[in-house]
Amino acid sequence: MTAPHPGAPVIGLDLGGTKIAAALVAGDGTVLARHTLPTPAALGPEAVLDALAEASRAVRTQDAAAIGVAAAGVIDPASGTVVSATDTLRGWAGTALAGGLATRTGLPVACDNDVRAAAAAELAAMDGGGGGPTLVYAAVGTGVGGAVAASGRVLHGAAGIAGHLGHLPSPEADGLPCTCGATGHLEAIAAGPAITAQYTRLSGSPAGRLETVAERAARQDPHAVSAITTGARAAGRVLGGLANALGAHRVVVGGGVPRIGALYWDVLCAAFAAELMPPLRALRPVPPGGGDDAAVLGAAELTRTLPLHPPRTSGATP
Amino acid sequence: MTAPHPGAPVIGLDLGGTKIAAALVAGDGTVLARHTLPTPAALGPEAVLDALAEASRAVRTQDAAAIGVAAAGVIDPASGTVVSATDTLRGWAGTALAGGLATRTGLPVACDNDVRAAAAAELAAMDGGGGGPTLVYAAVGTGVGGAVAASGRVLHGAAGIAGHLGHLPSPEADGLPCTCGATGHLEAIAAGPAITAQYTRLSGSPAGRLETVAERAARQDPHAVSAITTGARAAGRVLGGLANALGAHRVVVGGGVPRIGALYWDVLCAAFAAELMPPLRALRPVPPGGGDDAAVLGAAELTRTLPLHPPRTSGATP
Repeated sequence: MTAPHPGAPVIGLDLGGTKIAAALVAGDGTVLARHTLPTPAALGPEAVLDALAEASRAVRTQDAAAIGVAAAGVIDPASGTVVSATDTLRGWAGTALAGGLATRTGLPVACDNDVRAAAAAELAAMDGGGGGPTLVYAAVGTGVGGAVAASGRVLHGAAGIAGHLGHLPSPEADGLPCTCGATGHLEAIAAGPAITAQYTRLSGSPAGRLETVAERAARQDPHAVSAITTGARAAGRVLGGLANALGAHRVVVGGGVPRIGALYWDVLCAAFAAELMPPLRALRPVPPGGGDDAAVLGAAELTRTLPLHPPRTSGATP
Repeated sequence: MTAPHPGAPVIGLDLGGTKIAAALVAGDGTVLARHTLPTPAALGPEAVLDALAEASRAVRTQDAAAIGVAAAGVIDPASGTVVSATDTLRGWAGTALAGGLATRTGLPVACDNDVRAAAAAELAAMDGGGGGPTLVYAAVGTGVGGAVAASGRVLHGAAGIAGHLGHLPSPEADGLPCTCGATGHLEAIAAGPAITAQYTRLSGSPAGRLETVAERAARQDPHAVSAITTGARAAGRVLGGLANALGAHRVVVGGGVPRIGALYWDVLCAAFAAELMPPLRALRPVPPGGGDDAAVLGAAELTRTLPLHPPRTSGATP
């Protein structure tokens, strides 16, 4: 299906592990209505699809033209299905997300990974760059993921894996095992759990949570400071190198880890800057734009750039 | 200007430091005529432009529709000028390459960096990838450069620097100064001169040229083997990580260094493979396609994807 009428409002849905956020978004990007409800994570995919449909209904107007859904995990926008996912949502992998929601609502549905949706919203807000600007969007949290946009599109890449920024080699991670099975990847030293593990290795004392490490760093615990600055420096270096390789016009760093405080952000920015080739010297990472509505705006943006899956008519092959 | 008629032949020119190669290329990619002549490198830019025009005339037919020029250095396709260049061609930086050649030949001219031109030819020969396949093209020689193509286009990026693959952090290069002013970049351990320098550091004996290091490695000199395998491993790791980050459909490794022998290539491929995330596990680097005509075919391809600069009429502002 083709994109909805450019002026028509669309519904953006952000599906998280604990809540679903919905918004009705006008053609000019204005949020016309918002709604949130809890994610029935333990009740299985049909219950989650029902909840997404309910959230849509809560913000829908008669002229709403389509729904965009941003969800965690590996999502295939072409088939509209969940390729793989963690256990946060029970039985979620394999779900026909777009088809199931389109059938429940009667509206065409586009879907993608939540980080790509956020990058699509950032890309839509950028100008410049002959042939479309280049955007590197990192999400540093439980893992190190992200998205890359170039030539006016958010990349999907072979097997849909474009944006796995945490799986580049990092000098700081040398020898450390990565979640992907390789060793020495950025994620193994810069993700939240990796920073916590590094603190435990240095101090011999378990921290449990990244927030605990951050609190200890604020009290000048040298092992906590080292674990945080090592993770920040590793991320900054790899992102600076990627900016060189891609000629990035903008580098966004989001996710939970950068929110632990100024120490992290300052070290990341300094390490990033030190990598840059002279023509990029003024480039610095920025936090995600769009404020609290970023996720739903990104979800809405998907309806303008990705395949829309029509509602299934009863009796048709799914 | 718009692209020439898709069926019309175009002229591809590859400008090197010692020779100019020209070809007339049919719309279907067949090479219809070839010519080479020496580059008057020491005689200044006007002499080089004259030689490019002479090479064009040697292959030109009446229906030739445009000229594409691939040249070393930083080329701005939008303005058609040489932004910066080494001293190989005297006074070359700042030359109005496209305008000067268009005026001499009466044909519209497109131009870009030679590696991007080679990548454009590789991209044109690929299929697949929703929205266009993703290509990583590395050129490992005096430096480590390259090109990245995504969404159907070879990227130029901010300040035209996309493709500087040698300026990503490399664990093997930790602490080594890079030509760009940063430290720890891939180029500082994987470029030809960097491998030679590493051999000298390890052995305490100067080698002078990479070929000398390769000869010593063939005779099992452990320092020569180490310098070559370290450079190969560093390149393989960074390219594997980039393949993860971009979801590469194809990774090409060209330039002079891979031609030093099987030891280099085997180590590079193994290091590359060890980085890959499971969905990419079957991906392996390949040498450039296109054989001896690759450079002129890439140059010809530029006329189909880049701005064409028209001949200047006399009296017009240059």
